[in-house]
Amino acid sequence: MRKVRYGGDYNPEQWPDAVWDRDHELFDLARIDTLTVGVFVWALTNPAEGVYDFAVLDRIVERAAAEGRSVCLATGTGAHPPWLARAYPEVTRTDFEGRRHRFGQRHNSCPSSPAFQRLSAELARRVAQRYAGSPAVVAWHVGNEYGGACYCDLCGEAFRAWLRQRYTTLDALNAAWYTTFWSHRFTDWAQIEPPSALTEHWRGPDHTAFQGITLDYLRFMSDAMLANFRAEKAAIRAHSGLPVTTNLMGMYRPIDYHRWADDLDFASWDNYPPDDTSQARMALAHDLMRGLKGGQPFWLMEQTPSCTASRDVNPLKRPGLLRLWSWQAVAHGADAVLYFQMRASRGACEKYHGAVIGHGDRSDTRVFREVADLGAELERLGDATLGARTPARVALLFDWDSWWVLEISDGPNRLVRYLDVVLAYHRALWDAGADLDVVPVTADLTGYDVVVAPALHMVKGDLATRLEAVAARGGSVLTTFLSGRVDVDDLAFPSDVPGPLAPLMGIRVDEWDARPPDVVNPVRLGSSTVESRLIFELVVPDGAEVVGTYGADFYAGTPAVTRHAFGAGHGWYVGAGLDGAGVAWVVRRVLARHDLLGPYADLA
Amino acid sequence: MRKVRYGGDYNPEQWPDAVWDRDHELFDLARIDTLTVGVFVWALTNPAEGVYDFAVLDRIVERAAAEGRSVCLATGTGAHPPWLARAYPEVTRTDFEGRRHRFGQRHNSCPSSPAFQRLSAELARRVAQRYAGSPAVVAWHVGNEYGGACYCDLCGEAFRAWLRQRYTTLDALNAAWYTTFWSHRFTDWAQIEPPSALTEHWRGPDHTAFQGITLDYLRFMSDAMLANFRAEKAAIRAHSGLPVTTNLMGMYRPIDYHRWADDLDFASWDNYPPDDTSQARMALAHDLMRGLKGGQPFWLMEQTPSCTASRDVNPLKRPGLLRLWSWQAVAHGADAVLYFQMRASRGACEKYHGAVIGHGDRSDTRVFREVADLGAELERLGDATLGARTPARVALLFDWDSWWVLEISDGPNRLVRYLDVVLAYHRALWDAGADLDVVPVTADLTGYDVVVAPALHMVKGDLATRLEAVAARGGSVLTTFLSGRVDVDDLAFPSDVPGPLAPLMGIRVDEWDARPPDVVNPVRLGSSTVESRLIFELVVPDGAEVVGTYGADFYAGTPAVTRHAFGAGHGWYVGAGLDGAGVAWVVRRVLARHDLLGPYADLA
Amino acid sequence: MRKVRYGGDYNPEQWPDAVWDRDHELFDLARIDTLTVGVFVWALTNPAEGVYDFAVLDRIVERAAAEGRSVCLATGTGAHPPWLARAYPEVTRTDFEGRRHRFGQRHNSCPSSPAFQRLSAELARRVAQRYAGSPAVVAWHVGNEYGGACYCDLCGEAFRAWLRQRYTTLDALNAAWYTTFWSHRFTDWAQIEPPSALTEHWRGPDHTAFQGITLDYLRFMSDAMLANFRAEKAAIRAHSGLPVTTNLMGMYRPIDYHRWADDLDFASWDNYPPDDTSQARMALAHDLMRGLKGGQPFWLMEQTPSCTASRDVNPLKRPGLLRLWSWQAVAHGADAVLYFQMRASRGACEKYHGAVIGHGDRSDTRVFREVADLGAELERLGDATLGARTPARVALLFDWDSWWVLEISDGPNRLVRYLDVVLAYHRALWDAGADLDVVPVTADLTGYDVVVAPALHMVKGDLATRLEAVAARGGSVLTTFLSGRVDVDDLAFPSDVPGPLAPLMGIRVDEWDARPPDVVNPVRLGSSTVESRLIFELVVPDGAEVVGTYGADFYAGTPAVTRHAFGAGHGWYVGAGLDGAGVAWVVRRVLARHDLLGPYADLA
Ligand SMILES: [Zn+2]
Ligand SMILES: [Zn+2]
Ligand SMILES: [Zn+2]
Repeated sequence: MRKVRYGGDYNPEQWPDAVWDRDHELFDLARIDTLTVGVFVWALTNPAEGVYDFAVLDRIVERAAAEGRSVCLATGTGAHPPWLARAYPEVTRTDFEGRRHRFGQRHNSCPSSPAFQRLSAELARRVAQRYAGSPAVVAWHVGNEYGGACYCDLCGEAFRAWLRQRYTTLDALNAAWYTTFWSHRFTDWAQIEPPSALTEHWRGPDHTAFQGITLDYLRFMSDAMLANFRAEKAAIRAHSGLPVTTNLMGMYRPIDYHRWADDLDFASWDNYPPDDTSQARMALAHDLMRGLKGGQPFWLMEQTPSCTASRDVNPLKRPGLLRLWSWQAVAHGADAVLYFQMRASRGACEKYHGAVIGHGDRSDTRVFREVADLGAELERLGDATLGARTPARVALLFDWDSWWVLEISDGPNRLVRYLDVVLAYHRALWDAGADLDVVPVTADLTGYDVVVAPALHMVKGDLATRLEAVAARGGSVLTTFLSGRVDVDDLAFPSDVPGPLAPLMGIRVDEWDARPPDVVNPVRLGSSTVESRLIFELVVPDGAEVVGTYGADFYAGTPAVTRHAFGAGHGWYVGAGLDGAGVAWVVRRVLARHDLLGPYADLA
Repeated sequence: MRKVRYGGDYNPEQWPDAVWDRDHELFDLARIDTLTVGVFVWALTNPAEGVYDFAVLDRIVERAAAEGRSVCLATGTGAHPPWLARAYPEVTRTDFEGRRHRFGQRHNSCPSSPAFQRLSAELARRVAQRYAGSPAVVAWHVGNEYGGACYCDLCGEAFRAWLRQRYTTLDALNAAWYTTFWSHRFTDWAQIEPPSALTEHWRGPDHTAFQGITLDYLRFMSDAMLANFRAEKAAIRAHSGLPVTTNLMGMYRPIDYHRWADDLDFASWDNYPPDDTSQARMALAHDLMRGLKGGQPFWLMEQTPSCTASRDVNPLKRPGLLRLWSWQAVAHGADAVLYFQMRASRGACEKYHGAVIGHGDRSDTRVFREVADLGAELERLGDATLGARTPARVALLFDWDSWWVLEISDGPNRLVRYLDVVLAYHRALWDAGADLDVVPVTADLTGYDVVVAPALHMVKGDLATRLEAVAARGGSVLTTFLSGRVDVDDLAFPSDVPGPLAPLMGIRVDEWDARPPDVVNPVRLGSSTVESRLIFELVVPDGAEVVGTYGADFYAGTPAVTRHAFGAGHGWYVGAGLDGAGVAWVVRRVLARHDLLGPYADLA
Repeated sequence: MRKVRYGGDYNPEQWPDAVWDRDHELFDLARIDTLTVGVFVWALTNPAEGVYDFAVLDRIVERAAAEGRSVCLATGTGAHPPWLARAYPEVTRTDFEGRRHRFGQRHNSCPSSPAFQRLSAELARRVAQRYAGSPAVVAWHVGNEYGGACYCDLCGEAFRAWLRQRYTTLDALNAAWYTTFWSHRFTDWAQIEPPSALTEHWRGPDHTAFQGITLDYLRFMSDAMLANFRAEKAAIRAHSGLPVTTNLMGMYRPIDYHRWADDLDFASWDNYPPDDTSQARMALAHDLMRGLKGGQPFWLMEQTPSCTASRDVNPLKRPGLLRLWSWQAVAHGADAVLYFQMRASRGACEKYHGAVIGHGDRSDTRVFREVADLGAELERLGDATLGARTPARVALLFDWDSWWVLEISDGPNRLVRYLDVVLAYHRALWDAGADLDVVPVTADLTGYDVVVAPALHMVKGDLATRLEAVAARGGSVLTTFLSGRVDVDDLAFPSDVPGPLAPLMGIRVDEWDARPPDVVNPVRLGSSTVESRLIFELVVPDGAEVVGTYGADFYAGTPAVTRHAFGAGHGWYVGAGLDGAGVAWVVRRVLARHDLLGPYADLA
């Protein structure tokens, strides 16, 4: 039966066979149809260099098949085995502090290590070759939650190769990095070091002396891990045409998922909200993940049925939340609802992480009952939602480059966080009930009436032109403080702020104030007064009309929010760090003009 | 005259001989009869490899003897000398961050260093040989405040040897550490690394990916330092039958003092309470120290007469506190009341640490007067309390393994600290005036009517059976949330919580909620309502009667405290993080049943 | 025309020539007459070892000359170039954590590196040789904001050489460092390590086991950087007699500017106050800088016209503040008012730092207008203030040694910070309108009626005698808690506190209480009651009269403030951490006696 897949991560290699029977008995009770298998079995399937042993994995996959369950089969490279780290010390990472790690934990493979590259691809090849024909296998799962960064000499070498590719000449690189500043002009590629606590950074990963170097390293590292993924995928593709994915992590800063999207056959992600009131944040994450593949459905690859373990305080999901949030995922485009984990491990750091089946092996617990009830509901749903798409006339631009450069900048205010700004504008759209797509800055914008670009610090390529086109044909474009500041190299535009967005916005910004969070500047919007904090741009209209004004400080009475008639549409500029009410006021004005307020907008 | 020993650490090697006369003159005024000598004289008595020079120490000991004072003589290995670190770089430790230290500070000898092992034992041998016949010497003092940890390659090698001893086979080790998780299966002993920031730990010493590895390293490191102590003791024993000790530190997490107890001829400890209101904490520490040697008296080896220096803020002990706390030590079993330090040093980091004699050399200061008054009191006391023992019918279980595994666990709530829980239950017993012993989980429990086991995360050996026996014969056993969770290897019991304690408690726990400290769940206990915080286990009675219930959240009305009739006695289970009033309510119920409330219980 | 110099840091090598025209056009508008040039051009003027290329710098200097502007010409050694770090890895520093850095950031030259020493001096020599004859050049600027510290082996070697120079024998060194404590007696110079996180320090740079070692390393490192400055200055002097300076940083702890003062031809400093209400702090900094050269005028080398970039939150300077603070500098002795920076860079970490000319290239911004208005004002002022001096009868002693030893001490209270105490007493003097000099402890005190020495922890040389002379001839000497504690080696005086200050103060201090900041002890002063916090010395009068008494705790009623008649004058002692009102009360009493209250003292 075609239906929303239901199941999750299953690691029976951790327990005796006798328990497997009980597992499948309980899976039946809960209508579990899909198991993610083998994510961490490298040490088991490849116990020594050149030695491969698939006996246990064979039995796991065969049993799943025999029970009629589908398998999302991992290549097993989510963590490397001890023997590999011992034989090739290069495979463990060197951290931001310059410390070469040794075997341990989970995320520890250097993406530039030849040994890791060769042996992970070889394992992927063998797994694909062996199980391509299994009737249970429906998808391939590569690696696990790619992330982090390595600063080793191999990565340094690979970074320099990546830079040669990007810049061709040192002159181009010196210009992009603005190396005349602080005597940094490089005269030999070999002089270039990864930006770390030992080189360019003076207080952690966000405080760098050279934003351009750090930005390029972020891009490079994202690409380096993508190359690992591609290598495994290529190895799989030689034996199987089934879709290949890896589990992403929503709004995860270290990796530019937009650069990865083309290589994923479908998107999937792990949803671990920080608290019980994260519904809006999750909505954004779902939309971002759906937006990776142009609106194509994704898998919810992991969620906990009850609690996490890795946080300082790990509260229980309240009754009903599991159901509510699972349906939210489906509503946002998920074609699979999967758990981490099907059964709790007995040892190591996830033994207290929630599981469908606990240490007591019971079906009469609240958690199991909720899981089983949801299984029954999804079964009744059948294929009603599969492959469904939501046509949206609102686009929210999400841009890793802007995220990175905003947060690695010195000045004006480190407390302005990219995600906070994006969340605020997304929240307003979500509360207003607008259907929306979260898309990259390279997306085709011709289908949208409203484009919202919060904190779009970097404007690159022909984006400004395409945004102008949206307004020209009658659409509305909204952007905020700290947008239009830098080009693709993080060089400030040598012109008035907001750079290439200035014509569309009909304003300029000569100066900007920053204050700690306890300083509030009231902003007058129509008959309302809202609060603004952290960042206060002093906006000089140049064609735009004033929509809102500051109420305090030496710039009281000057514009905080403006609207510029541009062609048949509008450019909206929000220069102040408005509170939720302020953002809602502006966003609803914009939506209302296009009749895009949802039917339940008043309930928010 | 036999009496409570009175005196303290005395380092006259730091000042000219002329001052020694004044020292002894003031000692006489203060009735000082015992001096701890030579704790940091390695550089003096062994100024180069193979060179020994006891001239100064001879004069110190001879002068003490001549003055009629006893000497607790240190081997001098509390800190190693510069020449040793220079000649053998191995003797300085490698820290948790993987950094090899160089000479400096105080606690810096790698316990696995052959050079340190050989030369510290040799120094101990020579000291014992030389001073065994001194009439002044009454005890030997080895090392100083053993503690910390080393992560060097020598310790790695020693750890692997310790593991081979413990597990014999890699299969056994892999099972104990649950290495199938995250691809950790070890196929060669050489693959095993000390768990550190460079290997298994992701955020400091408590955040490990593999609890089993970290637990074993804690055990190993405690044993490694014990081996250092044993080596020195053996060297001493060849020349002297006098008792050997080292100064412990009360509730000190890094060392499992219960594993050390057999090797100490008598216990001694250094008492530096964090503030003026630590009387209950000190009572627990005294009881724990007394419990090391089955109730035998101990020495209070160090306390400050006035103030510490190493804290950010070092308040003065208010007038009278010195006397009060010294008598508290005696009341809890101390046969010696000693100070750090007899005279203040002029330089380095302890020059502002309180001393019996200050830089001004005066006898007319408040502090000196208080010291002298107490000296006179102790002289009047004579031998009245020496060797005294307190028969107790209440036992509090204290368990380093549970301490360690509770605090290195991921989930459910890192804010639940073992010591906080133990302190809360001890405090309730102390306020109620119950005589009690603080004992290890291996202690003989047959003499106790009440056994309290707070946060007994690990249950090992036959402990569950012995606790059942206490209840079976009419006693009361009380345990709390997060007890009975793991076996000796930190593997979750594959059964209902609280594992082997479940039959005695007559309950099971399917799920547990954790919340930040600002969330309060009121608990109804009889006619009282108390508060609970941090941890809220959802208790399902299986024979137990409900004593207290939650007042809020989705589990309002369900049991928070239960009592189970077991044989002629009871098993009490407290599933909630009760406040002091709640703990007192439960503890007094238990004590009252056995008529163990003290005469002044109502004064608390 | 002789006038207050006006201009700032100018880095046209960062932008195309076309922009230079606009720069000078705007400079004319703003009456800019002085440009600091070449601070970071090492990579440009010396692009490879042995290769020098002054083409760009020639054009910059020539253009300035042609425009009639003066140049403060830097040697360009404020940051070293990539090729140098690559060729000589020794030039990058090893940090406090023992990590050898690699190329990056700005402050990274090891002062002990032979390569850095040789090549920086050679560059200075060539710059001086080439531009000595330029009519535009008016001063030489060496390095940039010297600071930080290095802990490499070369520095270790240089430290040992410095120690041999200071102590001659190991016996003298062992005595000074009090190495008998904790078995630290050094028997070979080679055993001595720089005090770092890997050796003597147990929690950051202030927490050391051996204060003497850390103190000497601070002195050594200050001297090591001074040697770098001297080497460049000597190279310049061979070709030019123009004055040489480097930009200092006001109250900057790592460098003892008093040890540098003789080598500076004039003082200059960079003023970046942390907030809008730092006028008193800036006044102290100006006075300290003026005091370096015996009252001779100094340059304000850098200030931002609008905002900083490197702080977490970088607020705008409110309108008018730039003018107010610039005039404050002139009033305190500045003969130059310069900005960082003349034009904003487009890339790297200072692109959002304020500038006279922003990315928009405008003259019609508020900031540019304020800069231009001030330029016009200074032009009108002409030479009226040049070279002016303020005769003062009040001296405030500022002492880096006391700063260091106070803050690296263990006990009594780490929350007592040297600068807070000095600021409090300076503030009181400043509010009272007293003209004052901020001078080193070696200064000639014969011209002062009042000498204030807050937190003078170390008393060295003949200072006590000279302070007694001030009082003897009718002057007033005021000191506070934690003064007179240690000698030049940080050894506690073997006598009553406050050591050599005791006769003058007529008191002794047997004990001292320390409490966290929420504990207040009211102090009665005349008819007022003020608050005291953090430190409460218990003062025993020995000739002094009681001026103020504690109101609480067991020492209620005992003296907190005393005054001792000494010769024709007074010694005042403040034993308590008084609040601002309390300090003001005492300070005004002292000033009033000498009729030194300013005319606007009541406005404060
Ligand atoms: Zn790498
Ligand atoms: Zn070691
Ligand atoms: Zn160095």
